[in-house]
Amino acid sequence: MIKYGEYLHIDSILNAQHPESDRHGQPAHDEMLFIITHQTFELWFKQVLFEVGSVVDILGKPYVREADVSTCLARVQRVNRIMEHLAQQFTLLETMSPGDFMDFRGFLNPASGFQSVQWRILERTLGLPESKRVLKHYKESLPEHEQHQLDAATRNPTLFDVVEKWLSTMPFMESEGYAFWESYRTAVRAMFDRDRADVRRLADADGHDASDALEQIDRTEDGFMSLFDASRYADLLEHGTRRLSQRATLAALFISTYRNQPLLQIPYRLLDAIVELDRLVSLWRYRHTMMVSRMIGMRIGTGGSSGHEYLMATTIRQRVFDDITSLNSFLIPSEHIPDLPSDIRTRLQFVNETHS
Amino acid sequence: MIKYGEYLHIDSILNAQHPESDRHGQPAHDEMLFIITHQTFELWFKQVLFEVGSVVDILGKPYVREADVSTCLARVQRVNRIMEHLAQQFTLLETMSPGDFMDFRGFLNPASGFQSVQWRILERTLGLPESKRVLKHYKESLPEHEQHQLDAATRNPTLFDVVEKWLSTMPFMESEGYAFWESYRTAVRAMFDRDRADVRRLADADGHDASDALEQIDRTEDGFMSLFDASRYADLLEHGTRRLSQRATLAALFISTYRNQPLLQIPYRLLDAIVELDRLVSLWRYRHTMMVSRMIGMRIGTGGSSGHEYLMATTIRQRVFDDITSLNSFLIPSEHIPDLPSDIRTRLQFVNETHS
Amino acid sequence: MIKYGEYLHIDSILNAQHPESDRHGQPAHDEMLFIITHQTFELWFKQVLFEVGSVVDILGKPYVREADVSTCLARVQRVNRIMEHLAQQFTLLETMSPGDFMDFRGFLNPASGFQSVQWRILERTLGLPESKRVLKHYKESLPEHEQHQLDAATRNPTLFDVVEKWLSTMPFMESEGYAFWESYRTAVRAMFDRDRADVRRLADADGHDASDALEQIDRTEDGFMSLFDASRYADLLEHGTRRLSQRATLAALFISTYRNQPLLQIPYRLLDAIVELDRLVSLWRYRHTMMVSRMIGMRIGTGGSSGHEYLMATTIRQRVFDDITSLNSFLIPSEHIPDLPSDIRTRLQFVNETHS
Amino acid sequence: MIKYGEYLHIDSILNAQHPESDRHGQPAHDEMLFIITHQTFELWFKQVLFEVGSVVDILGKPYVREADVSTCLARVQRVNRIMEHLAQQFTLLETMSPGDFMDFRGFLNPASGFQSVQWRILERTLGLPESKRVLKHYKESLPEHEQHQLDAATRNPTLFDVVEKWLSTMPFMESEGYAFWESYRTAVRAMFDRDRADVRRLADADGHDASDALEQIDRTEDGFMSLFDASRYADLLEHGTRRLSQRATLAALFISTYRNQPLLQIPYRLLDAIVELDRLVSLWRYRHTMMVSRMIGMRIGTGGSSGHEYLMATTIRQRVFDDITSLNSFLIPSEHIPDLPSDIRTRLQFVNETHS
Repeated sequence: MIKYGEYLHIDSILNAQHPESDRHGQPAHDEMLFIITHQTFELWFKQVLFEVGSVVDILGKPYVREADVSTCLARVQRVNRIMEHLAQQFTLLETMSPGDFMDFRGFLNPASGFQSVQWRILERTLGLPESKRVLKHYKESLPEHEQHQLDAATRNPTLFDVVEKWLSTMPFMESEGYAFWESYRTAVRAMFDRDRADVRRLADADGHDASDALEQIDRTEDGFMSLFDASRYADLLEHGTRRLSQRATLAALFISTYRNQPLLQIPYRLLDAIVELDRLVSLWRYRHTMMVSRMIGMRIGTGGSSGHEYLMATTIRQRVFDDITSLNSFLIPSEHIPDLPSDIRTRLQFVNETHS
Repeated sequence: MIKYGEYLHIDSILNAQHPESDRHGQPAHDEMLFIITHQTFELWFKQVLFEVGSVVDILGKPYVREADVSTCLARVQRVNRIMEHLAQQFTLLETMSPGDFMDFRGFLNPASGFQSVQWRILERTLGLPESKRVLKHYKESLPEHEQHQLDAATRNPTLFDVVEKWLSTMPFMESEGYAFWESYRTAVRAMFDRDRADVRRLADADGHDASDALEQIDRTEDGFMSLFDASRYADLLEHGTRRLSQRATLAALFISTYRNQPLLQIPYRLLDAIVELDRLVSLWRYRHTMMVSRMIGMRIGTGGSSGHEYLMATTIRQRVFDDITSLNSFLIPSEHIPDLPSDIRTRLQFVNETHS
Repeated sequence: MIKYGEYLHIDSILNAQHPESDRHGQPAHDEMLFIITHQTFELWFKQVLFEVGSVVDILGKPYVREADVSTCLARVQRVNRIMEHLAQQFTLLETMSPGDFMDFRGFLNPASGFQSVQWRILERTLGLPESKRVLKHYKESLPEHEQHQLDAATRNPTLFDVVEKWLSTMPFMESEGYAFWESYRTAVRAMFDRDRADVRRLADADGHDASDALEQIDRTEDGFMSLFDASRYADLLEHGTRRLSQRATLAALFISTYRNQPLLQIPYRLLDAIVELDRLVSLWRYRHTMMVSRMIGMRIGTGGSSGHEYLMATTIRQRVFDDITSLNSFLIPSEHIPDLPSDIRTRLQFVNETHS
Repeated sequence: MIKYGEYLHIDSILNAQHPESDRHGQPAHDEMLFIITHQTFELWFKQVLFEVGSVVDILGKPYVREADVSTCLARVQRVNRIMEHLAQQFTLLETMSPGDFMDFRGFLNPASGFQSVQWRILERTLGLPESKRVLKHYKESLPEHEQHQLDAATRNPTLFDVVEKWLSTMPFMESEGYAFWESYRTAVRAMFDRDRADVRRLADADGHDASDALEQIDRTEDGFMSLFDASRYADLLEHGTRRLSQRATLAALFISTYRNQPLLQIPYRLLDAIVELDRLVSLWRYRHTMMVSRMIGMRIGTGGSSGHEYLMATTIRQRVFDDITSLNSFLIPSEHIPDLPSDIRTRLQFVNETHS
């Protein structure tokens, strides 16, 4: 028989708040809020890592069953609701006035910034590459045992890795050579032609110059065509313009296009949830950036956390799954989507439906 | 120089998760979510108690300066945003399916319910009287040292107590005998007369029976008149119909009515925030009730937590500041509010404004 | 070529705000908030009705394909996020102080309550039976053309109807007679036995009386056994204790139990989303009730909307899918779930998985 | 007697949804969501403009009474909760999959972007200067009558203008020459010295180079000193580094520092709420940007709305009240704040408190 308090180790949890301002004999009321906000962030980060880690394990298996994909979906959706909740949580810290923060900020140096090793591990676990990092020397500011934890995390496969692997092994991609990819390309090109016609018509109507817009359509179309050309795609990978393999990219496009086929419903939702997670990590960074600008204006953090521009840059540049998000530029209206070959269509159904 | 991890006692916090399903050799993935959700609830409860406790201390002082009222306001508003956040947090636990909960629920008995001593202390600190409690024997299910914590909290003044005290000592209530209370009563009675006329006109228009509605207006008006009659008021207190003293009640009505006077702006916001806190505690209970009904349907909790009806009853009946909320029945349009005597109006201004 | 403003009929939308307080020559600033809050509620109700209506159409078809179930899921999940958003929206109206409301409330009689015909249609479309309604004569207060709209809605099938129909036609329920239902019953009874043992052990430990708790377990078990007894089930239907047919109820229990089988993943999520919708409608009512108590205390609405107790009762009693929610009382740990017969298991898979 | 439906002009509101996909004979279910989401945005924008407009009127008066400041505070806080709600509302639109959007996007050209004249008016009403705008030729894309509305808004004073005016006329700023500004400067310089010592100590401890951090502290301190130097301040204004007048800036710093003085409590909350509004407008833009990147990847909008980079740039650069936000860099711990001269302290009190 276990009691609530013991089960939750309430004593350890509730005796872990030790304001520095108390220790310095100048108690600042709002330091408690500062501590507890960060501690709840850390608890939820543990949960997020636990969920994402389990998804990496499952998708990393040689063969991923459909029931497994469903489990992954539920867990990524849970992570997303947690991340939404945490982005919202900054409003609680913002009930502290900047002046009240000044009353204990000095006691915290250099801990006043947000130096969470769990957050760094999360970035790595999602698959943020070192090349995209805005801040290069973040690791050195961590204590040694935390550097070890981070290194350990680096040796594991990332969510990006296993999503790429899972997409690459989709059996339907054997159909890569099939005529329907050709039909698909034709349909997409027709869509860009319609876009160009619209842009020109609008420009004619009010006399503005359409060349910029047309050029951007050309670039987008060119980006689309490069997906089907192995040597151009290899170049994109080499230059870091794309990170996801060609085969995985085409699989993601296939899933997004044929998302209503029974077998693709859960995989589509999973891809969509993963891309949403990318956005929500970015939203968390954005709210964090805004909170910091509220608290210290444009000052530099004494512990090396470096100001507003840096934080905002992380928000924008450090996205992991842009290769998948950007595929939405190439989606086409359902009436133009080519029919699937019948053998593939059958394999995407349930046994039960083939009976009825 | 202090490091982030040490400052926040991250190790204590992050090593406090020990799933029972692991210990029994039947790991259930979702137990981690269950643990961490409850632990973050407990951390935030600590913060809420810290803030409410400080408000009780401040308002409990013999003389409460205006700057103190402002501090109390900021803290109650903070608590309110925390409570909103916590009510929302149940959506995270609800990402667990009821079936997945079954996989570890059996290991938790009797801890599966929500047996938080901090929550009980919060209820007492707000001022929930034993007479309003739906569940009478909650204390016995707590371990002994938690019973002591609870007893200690019981000996302290409550938020209800100090709000009553603070209201009672409002100096403007010396004006109790002034003619303007008489004008106020006249204005309120006129409002009820207008209500009655409206009800009758509507009933005539479509032929329905107005007697129930008229009777309720009579009762409300009678309730209003009883506020000014010391012996009737004493009866209401004795029967538990009202808990707040007559003087404090009239002060609250005064503040709500003259809320735009400079000196009353912050006190009005404080009263409003306290009444909102009452609603948000109730909302938390409501979300909790819904979460439990999702998880276990109508089963009884093995630890004695007793089902849906009980939880719903706590939501509805256990409000602490109904005496203040119900005053909103007696507010009148601003054009009918009697002017204040000029000596009082002056005392409600700033020194600076009397200069200009 | 269509312009943004024309497309959205912005002029109709933005010229539809006509404060009564203006018309009476006593402008009350906060009436605009009151109007716009209600108008956005109505716009979103239209969206909710549009989505729920489409789900009723789809699930009402004689044969529901798996892709259709997925479409229904996406739409109910959308409705749920809308309902969450609308419950939250009451916080915006609550930025109005009760005193400021008094400045224009008198001009609105009898429109001051929430007399939305769309809300009534929504209640009917979900399947709220007249027998569960707290307020019986709500229809008469509507204008004639709205009464017609309501009557029209009453003639259509409800979400409850089509969910029942869809569940009843699940082909796997042919297996009703199979031995595994017997195994399932045995497993559930064993679970209740474990619960009884836990209750007794706890009662012994601290000496309290366990008879109430044991009695409730008996009742719950008896409720479970009645699901399998056609004549007892018929009695429950007749007495209104249950509304969902026996076959549909067992199908829902089957889906909840075998929710990880590929073919049942989307149906399980759909059932879960529908039950969540029931909770969120209830949450909307709860927030509405709290908002009203803030605004007018315990006064009766002049238009016949009748006070706090009535509103709270609607929150609690008017749930549509309690028959499904209550099945969660009978879920068992996965290790005790009986294996499915192999022919059924095969039919729940994808064609593709039978190949690999 | 007025009916609910007539009062709210429900018919105009609910008959304003005309999907283009219907008109083209290719009904796309999700277009209704697209329409209603935008219509509710527009309704709430009307409310926001109504509130902000009233605040501009009040603060623009020659003499602003304290009760007026309180009214402004309540309205800006209301606007802030609306803006939070609207930022959250994008999650509703995000329940639409990008592929489903493609089914009707083609019919909307060039209206598919967000071309709200109310939003443009809001930007101007807040005080966004043309020089900060990322997109320069936004006006031409509006229909003529909307261009007129926009021009009309341009001729009115902005929130920025009246906040500057209100701050400039704070009577306490006569004390500009007083010795306590000198004490304040000394205290701030001491704080920067402590920061420099901390940075050096940390750099010594782990051997990293501190020159960047030290340089940034120097720059921040220099920025602070320039606030007190009329000719340097004039230069900053001329170069657009600052927009708020020197006197108004010092008043804002004074209010933030002495925010606990009775007379400054509401003004401080108002400044804080205005700066929060600036953040929330930015948050709205951020969520909008994320939603667009979900829907169309990196494609250009056909109506001239120009892609992801542009939208993100508006989020970051178009802040109106940065001059006030950045003052938080200069706040100091309360123990170092110089005492106010006693005549000023008295004028910041209530008449009532001088009696007691």
